[in-house]
Amino acid sequence: MVKKKQILVIGNNTTGCTPKHEKIAYEVGQEIAKSGSLLITGGLGGVMNSCSHGAKDENGLTLGIIPQDDPKFANEFCDIVIPSGMGFTRDFLNALSADGVIIVGGGSGTLSEVCAAYMSKKPMVAIRGFDSAIAPYIDGYVDHRKNVKIIGADTAKEAVDKIIELITA
Amino acid sequence: MVKKKQILVIGNNTTGCTPKHEKIAYEVGQEIAKSGSLLITGGLGGVMNSCSHGAKDENGLTLGIIPQDDPKFANEFCDIVIPSGMGFTRDFLNALSADGVIIVGGGSGTLSEVCAAYMSKKPMVAIRGFDSAIAPYIDGYVDHRKNVKIIGADTAKEAVDKIIELITA
Amino acid sequence: MVKKKQILVIGNNTTGCTPKHEKIAYEVGQEIAKSGSLLITGGLGGVMNSCSHGAKDENGLTLGIIPQDDPKFANEFCDIVIPSGMGFTRDFLNALSADGVIIVGGGSGTLSEVCAAYMSKKPMVAIRGFDSAIAPYIDGYVDHRKNVKIIGADTAKEAVDKIIELITA
Amino acid sequence: MVKKKQILVIGNNTTGCTPKHEKIAYEVGQEIAKSGSLLITGGLGGVMNSCSHGAKDENGLTLGIIPQDDPKFANEFCDIVIPSGMGFTRDFLNALSADGVIIVGGGSGTLSEVCAAYMSKKPMVAIRGFDSAIAPYIDGYVDHRKNVKIIGADTAKEAVDKIIELITA
Repeated sequence: MVKKKQILVIGNNTTGCTPKHEKIAYEVGQEIAKSGSLLITGGLGGVMNSCSHGAKDENGLTLGIIPQDDPKFANEFCDIVIPSGMGFTRDFLNALSADGVIIVGGGSGTLSEVCAAYMSKKPMVAIRGFDSAIAPYIDGYVDHRKNVKIIGADTAKEAVDKIIELITA
Repeated sequence: MVKKKQILVIGNNTTGCTPKHEKIAYEVGQEIAKSGSLLITGGLGGVMNSCSHGAKDENGLTLGIIPQDDPKFANEFCDIVIPSGMGFTRDFLNALSADGVIIVGGGSGTLSEVCAAYMSKKPMVAIRGFDSAIAPYIDGYVDHRKNVKIIGADTAKEAVDKIIELITA
Repeated sequence: MVKKKQILVIGNNTTGCTPKHEKIAYEVGQEIAKSGSLLITGGLGGVMNSCSHGAKDENGLTLGIIPQDDPKFANEFCDIVIPSGMGFTRDFLNALSADGVIIVGGGSGTLSEVCAAYMSKKPMVAIRGFDSAIAPYIDGYVDHRKNVKIIGADTAKEAVDKIIELITA
Repeated sequence: MVKKKQILVIGNNTTGCTPKHEKIAYEVGQEIAKSGSLLITGGLGGVMNSCSHGAKDENGLTLGIIPQDDPKFANEFCDIVIPSGMGFTRDFLNALSADGVIIVGGGSGTLSEVCAAYMSKKPMVAIRGFDSAIAPYIDGYVDHRKNVKIIGADTAKEAVDKIIELITA
């Protein structure tokens, strides 16, 4: 048995999620599925929904860790649901569950997950070209500790290839 | 897509886990895998390890939610690891993640998971015949509210059949 | 500066809370205040409310750790509110925050807190004479590990004296 | 009884904490104590330690919510310790416990707390003049939602006056 890599995809929930976010999130989901990795998301809308949709269309395996205590709040593309019952505190759980993180746009919630992943020194790749709360950190660091650099990527394929390379290294 | 049922199996960690616990936990894991359900455990030793072992030997899918923040502490039979970083507080997360719960022996940790599942009104089935912290509650209730009865079962097959029946109902 | 002892009082929420529960919980709160200790509760109704009421009537200091993410859900007798936003998972937080625990009646939620406190080897004293989910454990242990004995007491004064003695030991 | 305002102070832990951080954090603690508010911190070193020290020197009340499950890890200036046992996930608990937040420098951990407070729309005031992970957000917003503006202040007195004004409003 070779354990699947666990890739967390984070980004805008329904507010602030444009068709451009949805398209690339969907493609990231497809690529994660094609790589044989497990897709983890926050299980809700926007980027989380599109990415899980893409993964399911390529017969991937998807897991959603949601804020609520009832699995019915997860989007329809989650094979497995962890209803954390912890509200947005579940952002830390998402980060801890990741072998690596891919970022597609994102606001304050996404930034809290980036901070949590950074503190745990998880590899991170961010799609360039979105006007997001994460944009200032791409190809740079969250703080002076320089724990882990957030690597920029221009396409879904490049992002998934890079995160797998970083996880494997 | 038909979503897999999520069955949590709880019971003794390495302390207090006898070959009798291990045998029936292994069989419970096998039956869960054969039913096409997802096995969730606390990802550590004893009943959690044996049950995951049984599930993997039948090509099932297994997920472990562990107290530590590093996945390396999970047993080798976990396909997916959620390293919660929350210590034993993760017992509540286990319970919330379950569509139904099967209990094999168990001490205070297992009892806390039973309480959490009971408060969330999750169906529960317990294997009879173990001298455990759960024994007094089998075929009865945790408290005066009578939220959900803990159903007794004598074999692994009976336990899995019953929990699936209860989840489906 | 001598740090205050942190005493957690747990027991029935509004359901199952009788005038007898309220009376002794109120007295336990008074005694905790008189001892100069900090009273910690789950911040809601029933035993939590009465005990905090008693402590405030003796000018004690009270802290409530509530399941909700908004402090307005706490009872009016909490000086300090920790709105955990974690639902009933906050039962573990309560237990970890205690130097010692006093139990007045209680159902499944109280039992989960007892399990959490037991796993962390916190001293516990329970008021005798209630038909509760905790009654079977008074003057005994939660499981075979015999981590910590739950000591019985007949009055509020006796309970507070005993828990302070156990914390100090 | 008038409930104390609960003011969370966040900023650099021991790494990256300079005498300049310590001086202003100490003064912030003094001002919080003089205002009759409760000081909440993460209970560890650096800004958390200095601020609690200042509050105690003015006979204030201090509470530390720490990552560990054992209160002995808290600094000596915490009157009350909540040993969360949740690791850095406690950053969300800190934010939820605040009526308002004061920020003194800070790295990725502080930024995760800022995000959590922002998501919960808590008033925030940040001391200007530190080269920190928070600096880009002072007198601005964390994301496009414009939930709550992070107000800049130049002195401890100004910061505490402003946060109390914002909490009261």
